[in-house]
Amino acid sequence: MKLTLAVAALAAAVVPAFAQAQFAKADDAVEYRQSALFLLGNHFGRIGAVVKGDAPFNKDDVIKNAELVATLSKLPWPAFEGGQTTARSKAKPEVFSDKAKFQQAAEKMETAVAKLNTVAKGGDLASIKTAFGEAAQTCKSCHDNFRAK
Amino acid sequence: MKLTLAVAALAAAVVPAFAQAQFAKADDAVEYRQSALFLLGNHFGRIGAVVKGDAPFNKDDVIKNAELVATLSKLPWPAFEGGQTTARSKAKPEVFSDKAKFQQAAEKMETAVAKLNTVAKGGDLASIKTAFGEAAQTCKSCHDNFRAK
Repeated sequence: MKLTLAVAALAAAVVPAFAQAQFAKADDAVEYRQSALFLLGNHFGRIGAVVKGDAPFNKDDVIKNAELVATLSKLPWPAFEGGQTTARSKAKPEVFSDKAKFQQAAEKMETAVAKLNTVAKGGDLASIKTAFGEAAQTCKSCHDNFRAK
Repeated sequence: MKLTLAVAALAAAVVPAFAQAQFAKADDAVEYRQSALFLLGNHFGRIGAVVKGDAPFNKDDVIKNAELVATLSKLPWPAFEGGQTTARSKAKPEVFSDKAKFQQAAEKMETAVAKLNTVAKGGDLASIKTAFGEAAQTCKSCHDNFRAK
């Protein structure tokens, strides 16, 4: 009996609270990941406008956006893990059938935007351009493989 | 001529890049603020589940959620500033006609969740409950006044 309780306590400790019915409804899982990815795209795009010369280079704004992008880059993935989906989702079946490849693609993006976040603080526009381009490539690659048109 | 250029440069410096056509389309402004508020509600709700006893109290999870809530709490408001709206928006007309009151309500929430963020790091559940309750009141109050049912 004591052992059973200990195992239950261990399981509760090991399984993150997030993973326990994090999304009661599939609608919520889809809205969550779409919200996170929309904000991610928006703030990444604000750096893109600077990189393309469409917006003035304000170092502090780029830093803020890069920090936000790095924070947001970690959010979408748990909302795919339960396999919940709806007609509104643009996730291809491969998101759920090839989880390892999807996770790898997500991690590549997280690594690239973490680098962009570090580089942004340096304030060198040329380096920001390079890091932005590398990160953009990880977005495109994942969208090509895992997002329906 | 020199003066005109200097003034133009000053204007560019003073007006944040964000404010310059931040959202090309009203659809984007609405999706942006709805995305930010959805994520905000989701992560605030995860703390709420702990406060209500529906989820176990994991200090690190509460800290992470409170940090995220504090970060997200600053995002929605610029997306209302341009007055852009669509049929999908639940913003009452008062959001745009009584900007001062809306801004005040937003600031109350930001202050309350900043406090929750500080309190969360202390790890005392009773204090977290109090700070959560105060923050929840600011959400409700703003929704009552500014969000259509």
